[in-house]
Amino acid sequence: MALRIGILGQSGRMGQLLAEEIAAAGATLAGGIGRDGDAPALFAASDVVIDFTHAATAERHAGLAAASKTPLILGTSGLSLAQEATVAEAARTIPVVYAASFAPGVSLLFALAERMGAALPPEQYDAEIVEMHHRQKVDAPSGTAIGLGRAVARGRGRTLEEVGLESGRDGHTGPRATGPIGFAALRGGQVVGEHSLLFTAGSEQITISHRSFDRRVYATGAVRAAHWVMAQPPGLYDMKHVIGMA
Amino acid sequence: MALRIGILGQSGRMGQLLAEEIAAAGATLAGGIGRDGDAPALFAASDVVIDFTHAATAERHAGLAAASKTPLILGTSGLSLAQEATVAEAARTIPVVYAASFAPGVSLLFALAERMGAALPPEQYDAEIVEMHHRQKVDAPSGTAIGLGRAVARGRGRTLEEVGLESGRDGHTGPRATGPIGFAALRGGQVVGEHSLLFTAGSEQITISHRSFDRRVYATGAVRAAHWVMAQPPGLYDMKHVIGMA
Amino acid sequence: MALRIGILGQSGRMGQLLAEEIAAAGATLAGGIGRDGDAPALFAASDVVIDFTHAATAERHAGLAAASKTPLILGTSGLSLAQEATVAEAARTIPVVYAASFAPGVSLLFALAERMGAALPPEQYDAEIVEMHHRQKVDAPSGTAIGLGRAVARGRGRTLEEVGLESGRDGHTGPRATGPIGFAALRGGQVVGEHSLLFTAGSEQITISHRSFDRRVYATGAVRAAHWVMAQPPGLYDMKHVIGMA
Amino acid sequence: MALRIGILGQSGRMGQLLAEEIAAAGATLAGGIGRDGDAPALFAASDVVIDFTHAATAERHAGLAAASKTPLILGTSGLSLAQEATVAEAARTIPVVYAASFAPGVSLLFALAERMGAALPPEQYDAEIVEMHHRQKVDAPSGTAIGLGRAVARGRGRTLEEVGLESGRDGHTGPRATGPIGFAALRGGQVVGEHSLLFTAGSEQITISHRSFDRRVYATGAVRAAHWVMAQPPGLYDMKHVIGMA
Repeated sequence: MALRIGILGQSGRMGQLLAEEIAAAGATLAGGIGRDGDAPALFAASDVVIDFTHAATAERHAGLAAASKTPLILGTSGLSLAQEATVAEAARTIPVVYAASFAPGVSLLFALAERMGAALPPEQYDAEIVEMHHRQKVDAPSGTAIGLGRAVARGRGRTLEEVGLESGRDGHTGPRATGPIGFAALRGGQVVGEHSLLFTAGSEQITISHRSFDRRVYATGAVRAAHWVMAQPPGLYDMKHVIGMA
Repeated sequence: MALRIGILGQSGRMGQLLAEEIAAAGATLAGGIGRDGDAPALFAASDVVIDFTHAATAERHAGLAAASKTPLILGTSGLSLAQEATVAEAARTIPVVYAASFAPGVSLLFALAERMGAALPPEQYDAEIVEMHHRQKVDAPSGTAIGLGRAVARGRGRTLEEVGLESGRDGHTGPRATGPIGFAALRGGQVVGEHSLLFTAGSEQITISHRSFDRRVYATGAVRAAHWVMAQPPGLYDMKHVIGMA
Repeated sequence: MALRIGILGQSGRMGQLLAEEIAAAGATLAGGIGRDGDAPALFAASDVVIDFTHAATAERHAGLAAASKTPLILGTSGLSLAQEATVAEAARTIPVVYAASFAPGVSLLFALAERMGAALPPEQYDAEIVEMHHRQKVDAPSGTAIGLGRAVARGRGRTLEEVGLESGRDGHTGPRATGPIGFAALRGGQVVGEHSLLFTAGSEQITISHRSFDRRVYATGAVRAAHWVMAQPPGLYDMKHVIGMA
Repeated sequence: MALRIGILGQSGRMGQLLAEEIAAAGATLAGGIGRDGDAPALFAASDVVIDFTHAATAERHAGLAAASKTPLILGTSGLSLAQEATVAEAARTIPVVYAASFAPGVSLLFALAERMGAALPPEQYDAEIVEMHHRQKVDAPSGTAIGLGRAVARGRGRTLEEVGLESGRDGHTGPRATGPIGFAALRGGQVVGEHSLLFTAGSEQITISHRSFDRRVYATGAVRAAHWVMAQPPGLYDMKHVIGMA
């Protein structure tokens, strides 16, 4: 029998892409609701729910998922530490896939970034991250850029807070410090999302980059995660688990 | 008889490159001084002087050039408006080439940027400038990046101050405004200098970029300017005049 | 009264985008036909016709346009010299916009390429063109890449045939010749179209690039050309005339 | 006591950089010879020999190294299979580091390329490799580009010959095949060496790139390999062993 997938946040462009990808994957759209819909009813009618709404509702949705024993795919960004703790608590009851990006290539990028961080010592290689997004984006750096920075720091055996960030250089900055990771943000047009991580030493530069051509890549990844999560025990998962790179 | 070229700021790497390029061009090194040298004597002994020192000495050097009727090639960056006014005053007596960059390709970049600014209206195309330099650089954005922004604004019939800058985006920025030009700065390794100007609309992106592989490109351009300036009447010139793109 | 625009080649994705852009521009879809449709009837019912079909039918369509005094927007690529001559003959009776690409930015790219060709002499700057397109594209280099090469040659006061092409380097090539323009082609995924033109000297590199994110950019440009052409006398025009950069 | 390093191929720019890097590393230049020098005497006087000459002399030099029990750093490219077999035979007696590139970042690139090949199936992701080198380079694709292709194929559990190459696309190519890796070569100016590997699917693109700013990076890596090899048993090694990524 086809998997019944519910959508929280169905009214926007992402909701439409999710509906198309659910159909393309041979699953059933169990229902979808916008801002004022009946979330408990949606969880009751679904085998798994995909949530692409807002940080403000993540805790409530995680609670509903746990109460109804419905696995959750959470694509919301900008959660506070407290909100993330509530999601982690729900993940003790149900499996949850919570990812900054559902593009398969972004998970690969994180894995490569960690390896590069381990291989290229900060005394020799300065790490810089530059991202570009559409003109509507309201914050910088992007969650994926921060995730890349965390991966580099992890490869160096530290946290991003420990190695430090230099985001948005402007004015008299002084010489670049050894250790911190630099971040820069470009905004323009309808660019879906582009990230580059550069390691630069005196005589060489190594770069990894990812570009999303179409937001559909996120919908495809979320539906793939919805199928994958059905076979998992309770726990908090990332897209790298879904694509087998954990 | 060979042109006698004096160098202000001879002690660094740029001084060495200038000396090599002067020899390669068949000119004579009239002399070169560092921080504490005898500048008046250098002007007296030279047909033309190249100054790659600091903004703080630009006014004194411009005055010496005017007093001794010696053409001046001024490659110092970071001048205040008052300092620039003093240079312009000296240029009423002698020809002065004052440029943010002596790389011939950068002058071409400025010309192209102005044309792009004229052809691509801000209502449709967001303009962003990103630059990367070596880890020793102490300020952001670079003078060349600002020059690119001025060229785009000029193409749009305005000044950079009128169209506005968004430099060093970080944190909650809100949606991108229509009109301002964005600036981002990367720092790392020994990168000589790289600049990109991106115009992005909903469905297309047009980019121009310049990379300097070696600081020699600036020395070559300055020596070329020194030969060119000998045939000019008093006035304030730019590298675009030297390469015939004014 | 709304402009009545007819479409030749309505069955594909481009036909759908054209229909949407015609509606968005406040014009009327006078009709559209696929491979076996009634072309003479379409010309009779339209104020202007957009043809995105095949080189093989370009001559017949140009003839119908001339006979019915209907301006023509011709986006077909791969025409032979004989086929182009027939189109030029029709353009003595009606205005025809015939372009390798209807993306406004590509026309700007051609204009910039010509200027770069004029400013950067082949003795010092090697010109290379690299393009990437989707995996279905059956020929290389792209028509736009060839157009860029022609623009560079024109800037140097010659034809592309005179300066020469080095397309698809492979094996023992010997050192790069001075003068010819290099071409390289990448293919993969669903990339809509990307072109870069690089001028490289010993110490610097200047690049211009264009990316189309979505094929819609071509439909928008063609509909813009359809409106523009109604006010023109007979003649053969290019997209650069439409955007005022001729 | 300082390591005594001999240089085969001392007359060119690379020989000069090697001599500088040997001094910088606190080693001793045991001697260096050009085309017509006394190779047996050089091997007798050296603890380890670095060979950056030509494929034609690789077999003779490997034999001298084995006969004199002197470890060998071999940076020559373009060896035939027979020549490589002779080098491997010598490596049964002495340790030999034989690498297509001595830039540390290139070894990392190979490791990342293999992982990308494993993670990104050819049915979804088209792999393309583009490289740029200086105008004197006489063959295409570069040895490093081929090495990248081999790494991708290895990640996919096959050889490059099995997955196939499409190098130098030109003319009527037909649609891109699924599986083969594409290669493109750019040539111009004094570009030291740049390589990019792109994986492109319908909605995303992941790229890794490496740029060498200065040929010194190869000399530094070769001298590092010379020190490393002294502690190794006989065997054929690669730069990835030297930097601990094997």
